[in-house]
Amino acid sequence: MTTQGLVMINTGHGKGKTTAAFGQALRAAGQGLKVCIIQFIKGETKTGEALALASAFPGQVELHLAGTGFTWKQDMETVKAAALAGWQLAREKISSDAYDLIVLDELTYLIGFGILTEEEVIALFRERPQRLHLVITGRDAGQGLIEYADLVTEMRAIKHPFQQGIKAQKGIEF
Amino acid sequence: MTTQGLVMINTGHGKGKTTAAFGQALRAAGQGLKVCIIQFIKGETKTGEALALASAFPGQVELHLAGTGFTWKQDMETVKAAALAGWQLAREKISSDAYDLIVLDELTYLIGFGILTEEEVIALFRERPQRLHLVITGRDAGQGLIEYADLVTEMRAIKHPFQQGIKAQKGIEF
Repeated sequence: MTTQGLVMINTGHGKGKTTAAFGQALRAAGQGLKVCIIQFIKGETKTGEALALASAFPGQVELHLAGTGFTWKQDMETVKAAALAGWQLAREKISSDAYDLIVLDELTYLIGFGILTEEEVIALFRERPQRLHLVITGRDAGQGLIEYADLVTEMRAIKHPFQQGIKAQKGIEF
Repeated sequence: MTTQGLVMINTGHGKGKTTAAFGQALRAAGQGLKVCIIQFIKGETKTGEALALASAFPGQVELHLAGTGFTWKQDMETVKAAALAGWQLAREKISSDAYDLIVLDELTYLIGFGILTEEEVIALFRERPQRLHLVITGRDAGQGLIEYADLVTEMRAIKHPFQQGIKAQKGIEF
């Protein structure tokens, strides 16, 4: 059976986009696939799921933080430089043919901020090795990306605890 | 800081409900929390994420398959007996105060099939230890459960590869 790499997108304004992407990475790792995760927005702090995957699957799951945290205190040039370095890394990883699944976490924001165009992103995806699955997360995935993808899920917030004044808790929110 | 256990629901007809729940379990495990997962519908076959979590966190993440696979070849009594045994196990695990997070995967179907009532499910949740977080997955979560929950996310399918004739692949779909 030939593997047909799928392009999967988790979008929408609800929770679970990144969490589901990590769940997908976990599933893939559990079946012996090689996984690379690039997080575009997040800064230095490693989340519980990142720590867990990295320690549970050394040599099989790779994690890169390409973001600066994206706070409003940073000037746009710093944010942009980090994002472009992350995108360069994504290019290398995608072309390397060393992975079965690559997660590009929060990639859509780079398009939203005008750092990348949807066209260049799709062009890279088209050139990828046939077996390579991609998972893209982030709000407001554009129409071109949605049309190109094989699987698109929208996470819609019906209810969120922060709206009710409950604080973020370790192991749950991060 | 006192931990306030949250009730989180992943519902809707899209993909990612169980995957996000496993991502949440991974996150929690990565932060050192104790996790128990009960899968109500799935039968004997262990998925990639289940295999991965169980092997990566022995003694910290526990997995129980309480389902029969729920195929239409089975009579309703067999399905019901397995579901009720799973529910009894859930009662014990929830009351034990031995976990920080319990995932009740596909629990909503038990309510949908009339095996459990929403009232008895919510009653058990109300009595749980204060620190205990719960993640519930499954389509068509009822209004009572949604009102009781802290966080509710609907996964909506915008596009699905099975609609396009692409087969389920190991490490991606299971």
